Amino acid sequence: MVDRDVDAILLSLGADLPWLTGYEAMPLERLTMAVVTVVGEAMLVVPELEAPRVGDLPPGFSLRPWGETEDPIMIVASSLREVSATRLAISDRCWARFVLALQEELVGMQWTPSSRITGPIRACKDEQEIETLSLAAGAADRVASQLIEGEIPLIGRTESEVSADISRRLIDEGHERVNFAIVASGPNAASPHHEASTRLIQAGDPVVCDFGGSLVSPADKRLGMSGGYCSDITRTVCAGEPDGRFREVYEVVRLAQSEALAAAKLGVACEEVDLAARNVISEAGYGEYFIHRTGHGIGMEEHEDPYLVAGNASPLVEGNAFSIEPGIYIPGEFGVRIEDIVISTRSGPVALNCADHALSRVR
Amino acid sequence: MVDRDVDAILLSLGADLPWLTGYEAMPLERLTMAVVTVVGEAMLVVPELEAPRVGDLPPGFSLRPWGETEDPIMIVASSLREVSATRLAISDRCWARFVLALQEELVGMQWTPSSRITGPIRACKDEQEIETLSLAAGAADRVASQLIEGEIPLIGRTESEVSADISRRLIDEGHERVNFAIVASGPNAASPHHEASTRLIQAGDPVVCDFGGSLVSPADKRLGMSGGYCSDITRTVCAGEPDGRFREVYEVVRLAQSEALAAAKLGVACEEVDLAARNVISEAGYGEYFIHRTGHGIGMEEHEDPYLVAGNASPLVEGNAFSIEPGIYIPGEFGVRIEDIVISTRSGPVALNCADHALSRVR
Repeated sequence: MVDRDVDAILLSLGADLPWLTGYEAMPLERLTMAVVTVVGEAMLVVPELEAPRVGDLPPGFSLRPWGETEDPIMIVASSLREVSATRLAISDRCWARFVLALQEELVGMQWTPSSRITGPIRACKDEQEIETLSLAAGAADRVASQLIEGEIPLIGRTESEVSADISRRLIDEGHERVNFAIVASGPNAASPHHEASTRLIQAGDPVVCDFGGSLVSPADKRLGMSGGYCSDITRTVCAGEPDGRFREVYEVVRLAQSEALAAAKLGVACEEVDLAARNVISEAGYGEYFIHRTGHGIGMEEHEDPYLVAGNASPLVEGNAFSIEPGIYIPGEFGVRIEDIVISTRSGPVALNCADHALSRVR
Repeated sequence: MVDRDVDAILLSLGADLPWLTGYEAMPLERLTMAVVTVVGEAMLVVPELEAPRVGDLPPGFSLRPWGETEDPIMIVASSLREVSATRLAISDRCWARFVLALQEELVGMQWTPSSRITGPIRACKDEQEIETLSLAAGAADRVASQLIEGEIPLIGRTESEVSADISRRLIDEGHERVNFAIVASGPNAASPHHEASTRLIQAGDPVVCDFGGSLVSPADKRLGMSGGYCSDITRTVCAGEPDGRFREVYEVVRLAQSEALAAAKLGVACEEVDLAARNVISEAGYGEYFIHRTGHGIGMEEHEDPYLVAGNASPLVEGNAFSIEPGIYIPGEFGVRIEDIVISTRSGPVALNCADHALSRVR
């Protein structure tokens, strides 16, 4: 905070709060906010009716429950005035209504998103974090293998049914919660963030399955801590027999994914990893159909630093965890994406996901 | 907007956007934002890879997809500059990072939460909205009846198992998604927002079950519209035989709930409804253990206007939809809460939930 010229950091929704304290704010209209100042003590302002949920806080943290007829904005504001804090960082995901209410009460302050401080720290995972990410990836991997091996029937079921099936399996394999389970079949597969629909999956359909959840490590669970680490994996399979064009596009994406993985060495700029995948796809003539970045960091949030995208010249550093997920999306026809989570290590990039990349035919 | 001195409204996360357009923003770091100005046209700024998810927009709306190397903040800012908009409303739940980025780009603007404009409109439900709320309440009611009638076993199962069971049933009964499923047993029931834990439910335990989800109306589903309406119900049951103290407290809460319902007539101040419940509980000697407001509005969001809380002198108006959910929470011992969703009508308050209020013994 001192290095970044910030007097106080205000943590509410998002992963910074559970990352720092083990407590996750409820996404509701009652404000939960940790106030951490450079000079003063740290305080967690929490609705009185949620105070019983708060477990042990880190040393130095006091708890300040507020009752239904109190104004939590005034509590936060006066704690900042007490220590003359004027340069404030606030959770990236804090709701606008709280930002605006604080700005109205505390006129003339400097504001910045908390990720300017926490982002670089959170982007370098320590051993314990990598261990939990591995557990999450393993759980997602087992579901992906069940998909590839045909244990999750596709033909004749709706996308929604398959999505619900995958969601159940993510929980069964150890996730605390499901964050998303995209099932996009046939022409729907051309929509990268398609929501599972009532479309019946048919023989010959390419089916993009992209899913993930949050898993709390056994150690954290024993301590009653919230805020797990995320999994995120994509496999594209064929319901029945693939046609030639799908097989061709699939192999392009598969090569792009492995080239990007190979490129993701320590010190390489994030945008270079993106380019490694993009070059393969462009050279095969599908460049215009690769409409998203190659990957995103992952940790307590599904998407966080570092982003593998053109314009991000930051080099990969030890402990970075990120997805590599190139795709090709041909509107009205189909789409293909393959995604693994990767860790930057001194001995090179290590994929946490192991489910097979070969094109699988599923009934 | 003219009445409220606002030149433009910027809608991102939260229910205002799907309420107005039928499209729901994904809660991700890529900005989705509708820009609606008083003088200009309306525009939906959306990540290119999510553009295929956007269905038909209302008349007058244009779609502005942005690519991975564009800055959506600049797109929004320049559209506001074009029409000289300086008084801006923004979604209550828009992320702080976007608010701060817009404020950095657009210096000297006036900001206000969008609920100042949309709140009073959204708080008065029309016939179609009440119909959807009734469908959602009915679906939640069926799960509550299953609980009361003993179809959901309690004794010997963990809170988490029961919570997962309730969640599955909410989906089976027609919800699109589960928003929460609190199962709080024994001393955990004294924590109003308790998260279902690994605690084994034992004979004699009071068990507070508070659950709800979002349900999309059949008509909206046909139109491919996102953003359902919420259910929210609480029943407290006994695992096995209740002791005398639990029975006594239960009857106090039951009376408080029905007194508040009776008080919730058109034109009555919201805080008066709160007081009606609070008086019953205080007179019974449990006032200090009723640590939350009596209710909250409900619609496309679980909690929205109007709030039944001391200090809210606004009168109930036709079409208001809200919870009535008094509770008593005795730390270290147990808790009781009973909750129904209620609609304000000209012929008096109408409860949408019908599951029995009598104390039920469940195995």
